[in-house]
Amino acid sequence: MSKKPLILVTNDDGISAPGIRTLISAMNEIGDVIVVAPDSPQSAMGHAITINSTLHCNEIKIDNGPQKEYSCSGTPADCVKLGINEILDRKPDICVSGVNHGSNSSINVIYSGTMSAAVEASIEGIPAIGFSLLDYSWNADFNSIKKYLIGITKKALDEGIPKGNALNINFPKEKEIKGIKICRQANAYWVEKFDKRSNPQGKEYYWLTGEFINEDKGEDSDEWALENGYISIVPVKFDMTDHENIKLLKNWEF
Amino acid sequence: MSKKPLILVTNDDGISAPGIRTLISAMNEIGDVIVVAPDSPQSAMGHAITINSTLHCNEIKIDNGPQKEYSCSGTPADCVKLGINEILDRKPDICVSGVNHGSNSSINVIYSGTMSAAVEASIEGIPAIGFSLLDYSWNADFNSIKKYLIGITKKALDEGIPKGNALNINFPKEKEIKGIKICRQANAYWVEKFDKRSNPQGKEYYWLTGEFINEDKGEDSDEWALENGYISIVPVKFDMTDHENIKLLKNWEF
Repeated sequence: MSKKPLILVTNDDGISAPGIRTLISAMNEIGDVIVVAPDSPQSAMGHAITINSTLHCNEIKIDNGPQKEYSCSGTPADCVKLGINEILDRKPDICVSGVNHGSNSSINVIYSGTMSAAVEASIEGIPAIGFSLLDYSWNADFNSIKKYLIGITKKALDEGIPKGNALNINFPKEKEIKGIKICRQANAYWVEKFDKRSNPQGKEYYWLTGEFINEDKGEDSDEWALENGYISIVPVKFDMTDHENIKLLKNWEF
Repeated sequence: MSKKPLILVTNDDGISAPGIRTLISAMNEIGDVIVVAPDSPQSAMGHAITINSTLHCNEIKIDNGPQKEYSCSGTPADCVKLGINEILDRKPDICVSGVNHGSNSSINVIYSGTMSAAVEASIEGIPAIGFSLLDYSWNADFNSIKKYLIGITKKALDEGIPKGNALNINFPKEKEIKGIKICRQANAYWVEKFDKRSNPQGKEYYWLTGEFINEDKGEDSDEWALENGYISIVPVKFDMTDHENIKLLKNWEF
């Protein structure tokens, strides 16, 4: 690349989360960075967008880096839409989202605010990556993955992400990373449990909890890669059609 | 079927919306109906779930039908999780969501609360359908599609929806429906426009608006079917992997 790439950075844990601060610092080593990120945590927001309410967006300064930053009242997908259509004066060369505090592998991709931002960018024709670390703690060690954030983003800028795809990249918690695997989404799921409680007035309410079940032992899956110390990369598409089953459904007689 | 099927009904426009009232009335003609639906509009919520807040769920009575109804504080996906795991005493035979006031065809599937409920049910191994009518008005004519709601749901119960799929079914606005087409999601998109305004204190805010662009003229797409007076049925899957591009990405050298 002759000129510096323009990089849009967002996340779902909020603009002050350590994960995005590391990502911003990494991206500053590659290009010109504009951050448009939620002003509050937006985990598990899926691909929500704000259509029945207003959006607020303020330029702010959090550290002494060269990036420009905007804190936005909306969801991760709103941030990408606002960034691309209102804040940036040209299309970014890439959109990176994260680093999420916690896994977005296998079925988690569908609930993930981090990945919804990346998928939104891919819908708008922009190469996009969502990064997640398998450590939910606020003070997770993001610094040790910084070199991979830089290396993978540079690679994506050089090679080009396949059209219509966003990359879902998860990092294992281990310090010793064995390498990088291109994977498919494991066929894993959550078995929900609702913790039923009573409020001080005696009225019942629920907290959603659950257990993650992975019976998919395929060595080509993201869960396998992560369990075995590899970084997983899954190409994610926004065409949700199950093309293989169209023929089957055509046999239905109405 | 020897015994009456158990049907879980939900939506994203809220439990009192005319679309779900018609769907409930239609499902009462097929089986035992349990409604678990949001207590307020949840359009464009994507696949959001409530993990950092509590959920409330109250049994209510809205009309004189034989169904049982629960009004829930969460998102459409929350309602399905609550319904399946807390409210129903056995797995439902099918989950139907809608009828949405407005289209969920093509890329809209990804933002849709109606479809997120259906996809959530499919993740939990339950046959699921999301129904939408291409008419955004509160007083849209849902009655004229009631016979199709019954016919298609019965067909799905008889034939079985392919494993891992939810059906995304959209109805054209026309009174004269030409038939039913099994389709793929059209490759259409929204070009966003943000309406920038100032509040009474002079602070800027935005409303998200946009223009729907469909350059995909394929006669196998849902947009083509709907534009030509057909009901569109797209099988939707929750595996978002772009399997075709895995090979391509494996050529990247790290």
